[in-house]
Amino acid sequence: MPDKLSTKPPAGTRDFLPDDVRRREHVVGVIRGVYERHGFDPLETPAFENIETLLGKYGEEGNKLIFKILKRGEHEHTGEADLALRYDLTVPLARVVAQYQNELPKFFKRYQIQPVWRADRPAKGRFREFYQCDIDALGSTSPVVEAELLAAVCDSLAALGFGDFVVRLNHRRVLGGVLDAAGIPPAQQGDALVAIDKLDKIGPDGVAKEFAARGIPARAGALALETFALKASSNADALGALAATASAEAAGIANLTAIVELCEGTAAAGRVRIDPSLARGLSYYTGAIMEVAVPDLAGSLGGGGRYDNLVGMFLGRDVPACGFSLGLERIIVVMTERRMFPPAVAGGGVDVMVTLWNAEAEGDALRLAADLRRAGLRVDVYPEADKLAKQLKYASTRGVPMVAVIGDDERGRGEVAIKDMRSGDQTPVPRAAAAAFIERALERKATANPEP
Amino acid sequence: MPDKLSTKPPAGTRDFLPDDVRRREHVVGVIRGVYERHGFDPLETPAFENIETLLGKYGEEGNKLIFKILKRGEHEHTGEADLALRYDLTVPLARVVAQYQNELPKFFKRYQIQPVWRADRPAKGRFREFYQCDIDALGSTSPVVEAELLAAVCDSLAALGFGDFVVRLNHRRVLGGVLDAAGIPPAQQGDALVAIDKLDKIGPDGVAKEFAARGIPARAGALALETFALKASSNADALGALAATASAEAAGIANLTAIVELCEGTAAAGRVRIDPSLARGLSYYTGAIMEVAVPDLAGSLGGGGRYDNLVGMFLGRDVPACGFSLGLERIIVVMTERRMFPPAVAGGGVDVMVTLWNAEAEGDALRLAADLRRAGLRVDVYPEADKLAKQLKYASTRGVPMVAVIGDDERGRGEVAIKDMRSGDQTPVPRAAAAAFIERALERKATANPEP
Repeated sequence: MPDKLSTKPPAGTRDFLPDDVRRREHVVGVIRGVYERHGFDPLETPAFENIETLLGKYGEEGNKLIFKILKRGEHEHTGEADLALRYDLTVPLARVVAQYQNELPKFFKRYQIQPVWRADRPAKGRFREFYQCDIDALGSTSPVVEAELLAAVCDSLAALGFGDFVVRLNHRRVLGGVLDAAGIPPAQQGDALVAIDKLDKIGPDGVAKEFAARGIPARAGALALETFALKASSNADALGALAATASAEAAGIANLTAIVELCEGTAAAGRVRIDPSLARGLSYYTGAIMEVAVPDLAGSLGGGGRYDNLVGMFLGRDVPACGFSLGLERIIVVMTERRMFPPAVAGGGVDVMVTLWNAEAEGDALRLAADLRRAGLRVDVYPEADKLAKQLKYASTRGVPMVAVIGDDERGRGEVAIKDMRSGDQTPVPRAAAAAFIERALERKATANPEP
Repeated sequence: MPDKLSTKPPAGTRDFLPDDVRRREHVVGVIRGVYERHGFDPLETPAFENIETLLGKYGEEGNKLIFKILKRGEHEHTGEADLALRYDLTVPLARVVAQYQNELPKFFKRYQIQPVWRADRPAKGRFREFYQCDIDALGSTSPVVEAELLAAVCDSLAALGFGDFVVRLNHRRVLGGVLDAAGIPPAQQGDALVAIDKLDKIGPDGVAKEFAARGIPARAGALALETFALKASSNADALGALAATASAEAAGIANLTAIVELCEGTAAAGRVRIDPSLARGLSYYTGAIMEVAVPDLAGSLGGGGRYDNLVGMFLGRDVPACGFSLGLERIIVVMTERRMFPPAVAGGGVDVMVTLWNAEAEGDALRLAADLRRAGLRVDVYPEADKLAKQLKYASTRGVPMVAVIGDDERGRGEVAIKDMRSGDQTPVPRAAAAAFIERALERKATANPEP
């Protein structure tokens, strides 16, 4: 036997055992259902893209985090990479919109729930492989688009059971206007945004220090921070303060005002808060930017924004676009900590286990299993003849609620003994009636112990 | 504006537009449902593995097709790869079974439906990214395991609507026995299997030529071919012929006999055909091997086999295992050619589109959309004020069956005009009754045009 190999998944990635997968599928299923109700159509793209598709789209930091794949053939020797794992679902979407412009509707609303990969330093809650649940709407600059996206996001979180989330909303051009007004030169505004993005984590003093480290004039930095640290008592107040500061960006402020108003008629009602300090890291945003947060999680459950120029890099002409991405992993972290999963989501997936009396009974056990499966039950078969006590213990350990026993006596009488592992009751049942009997027993139990 | 980038997906990969995704989800949903009924639990593993996990598991040909990922950090310069995209779902499973041996049940039955990547030369129907729908059962050497796997596979294909598939069944040790009996030395048997694997494609003469090219003695090759080209009229005949030829491998023949018999009580009844020429490419198989085929597809819809030594490479002690993999892409190719998809699977995902009369009506349109969504309908909102005729044409092009129009008159009367795009009928409905009206109209149509 060769040396033992490492059995851990690669750093920053995880294996999902059955209960994990069922929890993930539950969340994805709820989100997908809401996205469909909001008129989004599904899209899937390859895990990797040609490397030129991704490079230069995410800013300098993003570029460094792209996983690169060695070119096939001579790859061992040259070290050349021609493919790269997707870093998000937005750049692939922009490519798709350019490629299939004649097949896609004028207003293309798509959802995409797939993993992305970033060569980030692994840390608590930060993975190298994680799922994004994206919605994007292309083809219109109307604020209806932002409102529709936020409605779908808020509806998704509400459907999952979240009651305390807030959508922070800001606008890239208004941000620029605030920085202009404070006297931060355009060339330093990108650096300033990176620092401001950390306001929640490091506070105004921390941001002031970062400003200084990046050579931003102290007075200009202090002026900008005044606006960003603003704690307005209402969206109207915040919009008023922004209008006073960034008066040159009236169109952006009008856009924010329209989005806030439109949201009031949707599932986002009461959730949206204008936040002058929201910056968002990605470089491709051009208009409204948004992020959704809950009190007990550092960082966000998701975010997004308008990016009217990205498709143009692929298509040669701009197509207006806006998107939002919910992070599956963070949603699951919070739902797990808060015990928000319905009990039925995890826990064994088997309704009944068929025991195996002896080798001669194998064919008969499989026949019974086939009958029960035809009735729609989820059926496992103990694969080897073994002591009955051992088989029952196995079913119990796995949380299987019902066991079907066919010993020689039962077979002689054309019966099955059905053991309810929860009560311990064992009932002889004619074989033809076994499926119905088990279904009734499972339903009765579900009614007796209703889920919260 | 920068130069236009290429917008095609990488060679050998595809983008899946909405109708494609819905077809794929349909197939995956059916297969997942059947796998669950057969008592398999879901598992997911990362897209990439540490490179040592994969290298050396698939034979020489497989090794060459593994996509390698550049090491992070100094990767640009050294060309060193430390990760690789998974090549199948079996080796990751073997790693998982070793890693979580104390958390997993003794008889672990898992399904896994995820993409795999192979740097194969792209060709018609051969992709570099494709989905496998795997089931594996670990912990037992009983032939009940093989029968259970084949039952789940056959049940899946039947549930998808396939009626004409055949499961070819053979055994690696019986194959070895046939080659021994023919006088092909053990060192040449691997080469011989690669040639035999092509019997369907290149015929006995082609295989004989390959034997010669690989230096296999002509007489030994001819003897082996006699058995492999055998067209037995029944499984009993085939098993008899194998018993006569490979008499040293009685245990393997008994195993095949047991599998065939056990299948008769399951969804695999009447499907299994002993095929002495079935070889299967992968090097890790140790016992029964199987493949499922339909007449109108060159190649198989899926295959699998027993691999009792693979887990041992990770765990340090062997765990018996057997698995089967259905290929999603090939299933979809055949289902598409045969028009097997129910009509409702593809086609627009939207039940009703809300029109937008003018900018002032945006909030009201979103409010109506929210009401209809709360009732469970899939609702799109036209995002910009536009001529009604243009909006109706857009809905028609997209195949949206119902349109909700709220002009100024309707709003004044607290009504919505519901237009059935299929009949052209337009009906004024009180707003509170709109959702119920639309639901009834959609149901009536579904009943009037029942799906085949």
